[in-house]
Parts: sequence; C-alpha cells; structure tokens
Amino acid sequence: MSDSEASTAMAEEGKPDEKTLQVLRDMANRLRIHSIRATCTSSSGSAAEIMSVLFFYTMRYRQTDPENPDNDRFILSKRLSFVDVATGWFGQGLGAACGMAYTGRYFDKASYRVFCLLGDGETSEGSVWEAMTFASYYNLDNLVAIFDVNRLGHGGTLPVEHCIEIYQKRCEAFGWNTYVVDGRDVEALCQVFWQAAQVKGKPTAVVAKTFKGRGMPNVEDAESWYGKPVPKERADVIIKLIESQIQTSRNLVPKPPIEDSPQVSITDVKMISLPAYEIGDQVATRKACGLALAKLGYANDRVVVLDGDTKNATFSEIFKKEHPERFIDCFVAEQNMVNVALGCAIRGRTITFASTFATFLTRAFSQLRTGAICETSISLIGSHCGVSVGEDGPSQMALEDLAMFRAIPNCTIFYPSDAVSTENAVCLAANTKGMCFIRTSQPETAVIYSPQETFKIGQAKVVRQSVNDKVTVIGAGVTLHEALLAADDLSKEGIFIRVIDLFTVKPLDAATIISNAKATGGLIITVEDHYAEGGLGEAVCAAVSKEPEIVVHQLAVAGVPRSGKPSELLDVFGISARHIMVSVKCILMN
Amino acid sequence: MSDSEASTAMAEEGKPDEKTLQVLRDMANRLRIHSIRATCTSSSGSAAEIMSVLFFYTMRYRQTDPENPDNDRFILSKRLSFVDVATGWFGQGLGAACGMAYTGRYFDKASYRVFCLLGDGETSEGSVWEAMTFASYYNLDNLVAIFDVNRLGHGGTLPVEHCIEIYQKRCEAFGWNTYVVDGRDVEALCQVFWQAAQVKGKPTAVVAKTFKGRGMPNVEDAESWYGKPVPKERADVIIKLIESQIQTSRNLVPKPPIEDSPQVSITDVKMISLPAYEIGDQVATRKACGLALAKLGYANDRVVVLDGDTKNATFSEIFKKEHPERFIDCFVAEQNMVNVALGCAIRGRTITFASTFATFLTRAFSQLRTGAICETSISLIGSHCGVSVGEDGPSQMALEDLAMFRAIPNCTIFYPSDAVSTENAVCLAANTKGMCFIRTSQPETAVIYSPQETFKIGQAKVVRQSVNDKVTVIGAGVTLHEALLAADDLSKEGIFIRVIDLFTVKPLDAATIISNAKATGGLIITVEDHYAEGGLGEAVCAAVSKEPEIVVHQLAVAGVPRSGKPSELLDVFGISARHIMVSVKCILMN
Repeated sequence: MSDSEASTAMAEEGKPDEKTLQVLRDMANRLRIHSIRATCTSSSGSAAEIMSVLFFYTMRYRQTDPENPDNDRFILSKRLSFVDVATGWFGQGLGAACGMAYTGRYFDKASYRVFCLLGDGETSEGSVWEAMTFASYYNLDNLVAIFDVNRLGHGGTLPVEHCIEIYQKRCEAFGWNTYVVDGRDVEALCQVFWQAAQVKGKPTAVVAKTFKGRGMPNVEDAESWYGKPVPKERADVIIKLIESQIQTSRNLVPKPPIEDSPQVSITDVKMISLPAYEIGDQVATRKACGLALAKLGYANDRVVVLDGDTKNATFSEIFKKEHPERFIDCFVAEQNMVNVALGCAIRGRTITFASTFATFLTRAFSQLRTGAICETSISLIGSHCGVSVGEDGPSQMALEDLAMFRAIPNCTIFYPSDAVSTENAVCLAANTKGMCFIRTSQPETAVIYSPQETFKIGQAKVVRQSVNDKVTVIGAGVTLHEALLAADDLSKEGIFIRVIDLFTVKPLDAATIISNAKATGGLIITVEDHYAEGGLGEAVCAAVSKEPEIVVHQLAVAGVPRSGKPSELLDVFGISARHIMVSVKCILMN
Repeated sequence: MSDSEASTAMAEEGKPDEKTLQVLRDMANRLRIHSIRATCTSSSGSAAEIMSVLFFYTMRYRQTDPENPDNDRFILSKRLSFVDVATGWFGQGLGAACGMAYTGRYFDKASYRVFCLLGDGETSEGSVWEAMTFASYYNLDNLVAIFDVNRLGHGGTLPVEHCIEIYQKRCEAFGWNTYVVDGRDVEALCQVFWQAAQVKGKPTAVVAKTFKGRGMPNVEDAESWYGKPVPKERADVIIKLIESQIQTSRNLVPKPPIEDSPQVSITDVKMISLPAYEIGDQVATRKACGLALAKLGYANDRVVVLDGDTKNATFSEIFKKEHPERFIDCFVAEQNMVNVALGCAIRGRTITFASTFATFLTRAFSQLRTGAICETSISLIGSHCGVSVGEDGPSQMALEDLAMFRAIPNCTIFYPSDAVSTENAVCLAANTKGMCFIRTSQPETAVIYSPQETFKIGQAKVVRQSVNDKVTVIGAGVTLHEALLAADDLSKEGIFIRVIDLFTVKPLDAATIISNAKATGGLIITVEDHYAEGGLGEAVCAAVSKEPEIVVHQLAVAGVPRSGKPSELLDVFGISARHIMVSVKCILMN
C-alpha cells in the first residue's frame, strides 16, 4: 500500500458512511428524549450529537467492562443531566482529564485517548486555563477537549455568548490544536475526532456551537427555558416530534480498545529498608518527606510525585532527581495540580503524591472536596506549616490547613514530628484508601524515634511519662519538641508532665488521650502551630467533650502573624516551651 | 488649537524629553541598588524601570497623601523584594485591580487609573485568567496590567520562558489591548502607558520582556542566582557598577491627581425600616438575605453586590433588580469574585457583599485568607448550606464552610435562623470591620423573632426555656427549627429542654452557653447542618473545654451525603428533631 493510499484509508476512518451517520443522528435523538424524560426539562441535550459520536463511533472501549484499563476515558466536566454520573466536576474535569492523559502518555505509554466534555459556562473558571496551559506544555496529544458552546448559563446568557471565534482564539493562544464545528453535525464531529488523533505533540480542542433544547419548537436556544420543568403534555409533544426524526432502529457497537496498558500493582507497598536516622539527628520533616518519597519510588514503580513550583522547598526535588520520569512539575497552579493528581489516581494506576506549601493548598479546597466525593486515593503533602516558617511571613504560613483537611470526609491527616515518623507517614499514606494529608515543617528538629518504631494510623505515641505526671501535654510537629523541652525544664523543678505525639490528627486516638488525661488529674494542654479554630486542640476538645472530669487548655496561634525567626515567633504567638511551662504552672496552681 | 495640534500635544505627553528619560533610568538604578542592599540578593530588580516610569512619570498621585481617593492605584501582584508592601497577592492582584478599576469607572465615575504589576510565574494561576476575562467583559479601560516577563520561577525556568508572543496572543485572545515592550526601555514604557490612556473600552496589557539581576555581570538572567544571597563583597562590586551608570541627581515629582472622585460615607448604615415579617411567616433565609441587601441598598448608595452566576438561587437578583448599577455579575469565577470584592472595598469606598453557594466559596479560600491578612472589610454570603439543600446533591452542599470561615482570623460569622435575624445580620455586616460571612439556607423556615428584636454580634438568643429544662440544645439555621420541634414534642412527654440560637458562630457567646448549660445539669447537645469538624459543635466544645461540669454531645453530618428531600436528609444524616429527641432521652437515661 502506497503512502497516498494509506492516507486515503485513514481519511476514510474519519468519514463514516451515510447509514452510520443516520444511526448516530438517531442515537443522539434517543439520548435527547431520555434527557427530557429523566429531568422533565427541555433545555438540556445540547451535547447529544457529541455524546452519540463519542460513545458509538469514536471512542474505543468495552461496554461490558467500564473499568478496563485500555478503554478510552471520558470525563464529563459540564453539568449535564442525561448522564448518570457525579456532576461535581464543574471547571475541574479538564484538569482530571490532563492527569489521565499524562498517565496514558508518560506512565502507561498506552494507546487509550482521553475525551473531556466542557460547558461554556465553566470556561469562566480559572482552573480550566490552568489545565489548558498544562496540556499543551506536556504535549498531551492523546487528549481532546470538547467545548459545548450553547451560550446559556444559570443566570442568563454567558459573557462570550455564541462568539465561537473567541473560544477558538483562546484555545489556540494556549497552544492547542483547535477545530470549530457545528455541534449538531455528526459527520463533522466524526471527522475532527479522527483528525485529532493524527496530530502529534498537541492536545486538541473542539469548539462546538450547540443549542440547548435543540429540536424543540419555541425552546431551542430560548433563555427563559434553561433548566426549567416543562409541563408533561408539552414534553410529550416535544418527544413525539423528536421521535418522528428517528429513521433507524440500528445500534452501533463501539470499537474495542487497543490492549497495550501495562499491568500495574499499587497495593501493599513496603519500604525497602528501615529509616536511616539515628535518635538526635537534626532533620526537617519536609526534608525527611522528600527523602521518603524518593525511597518509596524504589519500592514501587507506580509512585508519582507532583509539585507546584516549590520542589526545592518541599524537597520533592529529591524524588525528581532519582525518578525524573515520574515527577510532574505543575508550576504555580495548585487547583490544576490537585485535579491532575486526581486524574492520575482515579483509575488506580498510580500511587499519587502532590506537594506544595500547605497554605497554597487552600487554593485547591474545592478540588480536594471533589476528590473526597469521588473517593479518589491521593496524598497531599503540605510543607511550611505554621509560624515556624519564620521569615517568609504570613502569606506563606499555613495556619488553617488542619481545619481544611479535617473538614474533608474520610481524609487521613498525618502530622509527623520527626524524620522517622515522617517516613512511616509516607509509607502508610501510599497504602491508605481515600485522601491523605501529610503536614510537614520547615525547621530542623531532632529525631526522637528509633528506626524500628512502628506507627499506625489513629495511634498516638506517649513520648514522655512517669507516675508523677500532673498534666498531659499534646503536641505535634515543632510543638511536640517544645513540649519535650518544657518537660525537661519542669522536671528540674520537680513538676512532671506527660507528653503525647498525636501522629495522626484524623483519625484521632481518643482512647489514648482520655486514658492519659485521666491518669494526670484530667488535665490536658494542647499546643499547636495552627489557629485554634479547627485545629488539633479543637479535635481533642471534641474527643473528650463527653468526659466531665477532663478539661482542656488550648495553646494556639491567634490573629495574623508577622515575619521573624521561627523560635521567636513560637514564643511571640504563645506556643513555645516557655508558654507551655507557664500554662502548666497556672493550671496546677488553680 | 486645531485638532491636529491637540493630537501632537497629546502625543508629546507620552514622550518625555531626553533629560527626563535619563532621570527615569537613574531612578530605576537607584531602586535596583536599594533592592540589592535590602535583600542581599542579586536577582531581583527586573521591574526597576517599570516602577521608575510608573511612580515618577505616569501615575498621578500625591506622594504625601497615599490614601487620597483621587490617586492612581498601584497593585503589586508579583513577589518583589524592593517594595515594602504585603506580598501575598501572588495570582490575586489583577482581580483586586479589576475591583478598583470597576469602582473607578462605574461607582466613582472618576479619572484615576489602576496599574497592576504581575510576574510571569503567577500567570500559571487560573485566577489571573478569570480577571483577564472580567476586565475585558466590563471594558475596564482605566486598567493597565504589566507582565514582568523575566522567565525565571522558584524552581527554574518557567513554561513559557521568554516567548513574549505567547503572552501577547493570550492577552489579545482575552480581549485586551496589548503592547509588547522591552522592559528596560523607559521611553517605550512612557509611551505605552500613555497610549493605554487613549484606548477606550478595553483594558491594556503591557508585556514587558525583562531580565532578573539586570546590570550585574554573570548574574543577569542566570537561573542559578534566582533569589540567592550574594556575598557582601560581590554585592558591593555590583552596586558600584550600577552606580557608575547613574548620570543625574535630579528627582521627579509625580503629577497631581485629577480631583473628581465623589465623597463617600460608608459608616453607620441603618435600615430605613424594621423588618417587614410577622412571626410564623415562612421565608428562606437566602431569600430574606436578598431582600435585606436590596433594602440596605436604599439605606446607603455605596452598597454593592457581586454574585457568581447564582443570583436567582441566592436571591441577589432582588438587589440587581432594584439597584442594577450597583450589581456586578462575576460569572462562574469565585476566586475572581472575591478578589474583585476586595478591590472594591480596599480603599473604603464601597460596602461590599459577594454571594454564591456557600460551598463554591471553598474555591476562594486562598483569596479570603489574603483578604483577612489585608484587613479588608467585605461580606461573603454563602447560600445553600448543608444537606438541607436536598435534591442538588453533595457537590452543592456546603458542609465545610463554617470550618473554613472560622479559620480566617477576625472573621465574623453570622448563621441566622429566620428572616428577621437575617436582615439584622446583613445590616450588622455592613457596619462591621474586617471580613464577615453570612450562612443562609435553602428551605423555607418560620419567622421566630418579632421585627423589634435587637441583635448583637457575639450575642446568642435563648429561644426556649423553663425552670425545668434538663438539657441545653444549641442549633442554628434549619437545625434550630428542628430543636424547637423536638422541644414541642418532648414537652408533651414532660421533658423540657432549653434551646439556644447562636446567631453568630464567631465570635461565640460562651457566657450564655456556659450559664445555660450549668442551669440544665451541665448537659449540652449541639446540632448542625455541617460536618462535626470545625463546625459550631466543636466551637462549643472548645468554649466549654475548661468547665469540668459541662459535657457536650454533637449531632452533625458525617461522610459524603447523597441527594434527597431536605427533610429526609436531615433525618438520614442524624440532625432532625427525631434525632435530637432520641439524643436527649439517651443522655437523661445515663
């Protein structure tokens, strides 16, 4: 076969015969009727032809095996009522699609393609443009984004309305191969999806001009009908009309997937050796975390790490150096970083970590929330927590991250206090279903656990105790070391305190807290490098709230901090060893 | 003067004489030296010429009166070390600049211009593109964004590097009048800033190609020097070199502002009449909120309301209808909505409210945090809180918003339970410094307060009490009504409970809670349409944590909810009257 023959044959692939086209049109109308019946609204269904072409002509997958790793992927980002899936992706689907496409191209090196259907309304969300930047930068030519431009939003017409060329210019400016099509023309849709597969090195955007309520007299494109219920009789009339346009009863079977994804195993990951630290070593937990990720990378070849232009501060650069092919630099775009992480993880094909300064993760609260709703397993690492960040100032200090992650359902929160527990946290996170968060600190602190120490989720450690203990002090991270300092100094005065390292803030080890509090006269002091609201102190208050004999005194940061030396700031904001000692003495005097 | 003469004279304005240009160059070098001295790094200062031209030639302002309302505004969005202002705006400055420019053009109708300096690194943040969309949609021709493209980020080179034309294409595609300049050329900078003022109906982007460490041998544009300290001797050599390029000692005085901003008064705002509700009326607090905003709009003509494509659900459409010129539709771009709100409010020229579904505000957590650091007074309204949203499903239900806003320093949180308290919350928020959050609910609930009832921040209401009360139940919003239902039913069985309406969750009325708890045997039940973590239950636990005789039982939503009828969901998720009754009985049995 000559080259020109080959290209003709290939061109044919994008051009289905007239019979097939009619079936695709009929399938679209059936989807449209289904939409009207399911929602009793008339204005949905603008994407019916797009869905018909994708699901019955373009995409390769096994209908009977939706989890097949070789299947093409489809992400529904826009709210759309005739497909029965979670609709919380608004503005986030393209980022997740990027994660899937990145995984397909670089980790799986497989043939599957990724299709993402977006609404025009959601292109107002900045996260869409973060994803557009990411996809072209990483040459994700296995990714197709379809913009369903129907010009209507919840509150009326959208800013760009039907100015298709504006979408086109924006997509092109962001480095995408871009086609404009009539979204009702099944032949044109077949063609562009096929063409997209021929383009190398660039993702493809399909800007489809569509009409809500298509095919419905006095409804198509009418603002006033958007999302509103239609009276039953009227719906019946409309359905009859659409039915009359259906000409075939044929069904189409999607093409089978190309089976070239590698088999992967991401469960039961074990570190290849014990932590290589000695008690007393001075190591920042953020650095221990970077080292642990690199080590985990040797334990399992599906461990991947994402970072948002902070790799030299979070120490994820250590992972990058040792496993460059499994590191994704997401630049300063935290929403997209989390969406990409979700996309990498959602099919269970990678063990996904994403790191940045803990406070920058507040930019992705909505995305984290969606991840929890989807029950996706990803681990976030937030470095530079609290005022112990020091000189960089309040904009860099995470003082609300525990409150945020605690409010994410089923999220496991690790707050390790030394290098050994950090390494254990990383390994436990890799083996934990659902979302995990590991909070790491900027300053160097002493290793307090031996390499043999074992850690479990929900199990606190009593790190200092005697029979004479009068108060239980609960800390984590830098404040645990302050508590130990306070314990040393107080012991010289004959005052003994018990010190607990929480290890995980969620789930909280309520049993250990309560039994130790009872053993120390019911007195607890919590001390944390975080605001009081939503932090570990409140978690402890809630855990003991039904115990009448236990009282809790909270030491936490209040107000907006300023810059300074870490040790000075711990003291200025009332969470240093000195403050713990004063607090202990005050409580014991009363 | 003929037209052509006038245009020549105007053209001259953009072209300073050679002497002035040299002074501007010298000023830039002085800034650069200052930067090296202040930071002991060599790689800053890429924007020195831009700053010199803006501050000593283009901008009109009184140096002695930085708060003058007629001054041109300058927002430093990128991190930049030689200017002594808060540097937490990364990716957020342009949105705030949009708010200032919108205020200037549409509310003040004044001549002042707004200049925003962005770094290239922050253009990865989607919030920048939300702002780009906003500014062109609203024809903000008084706004100039300067992109300082020096190609270096924290972790090395940036994705777009020095491809100036990519920035240019993107700005143009987003509808901006765009110029490309050499950022070291003071003459070209003077020219484009002047030209920008001549362009009507479009904001102007100035894409400036710059070099970090400019003027420093072996440092200019070198990746390895970014942000790193230079040895003192080396710094001295560099400073000497830069000093040798300074040719003048002249100073330039900025042009005075055009004094055409209206005088405004935004303090001591009072509603023009009492709430127009009767006890027993069925009104959703979200609707009462929309009505209250419209009423407040008559009390003060600087009240402005922003909404993110949800105005028909939050009922901010009522405000829009009555005060269309003071309503800003921000479409689906919550980060930008909050940034624009901050920009509107930051100079104390508007009383700013921004509303959307409470859960969508999680997209703007980082922006809200920055607002708190800047001590800006804005009020957020979050509707559709909790599972009582009903059919729309978990992606629309805010169950983490209290945790988020409680962790924002100095934020006042209103959680009104009926229409009268909602109207009071709106009026109190308008008069409160710092950030406020008003949490409103979807379902209709009964009015329980008379129009004369007075409300104060930090003052809870005891809405049901008798001498025989055995337990204190604390609720807010829909759960307060569930508590009242439970009280009615329990009283028929001879069990009496006290019911408290918190009104503000932060500050919390600890005194009222503690005294009533003590009067009811130390027993408290909290019930909330929110997760337990960071919600009002934990706030109560923390408030009573030092009271050994008080125990708290929390009823709250757990896990990821599903869709359903509001009343059904309250029951399924354990926060209905029935659950309160069971809880009361359980506690009293033990």
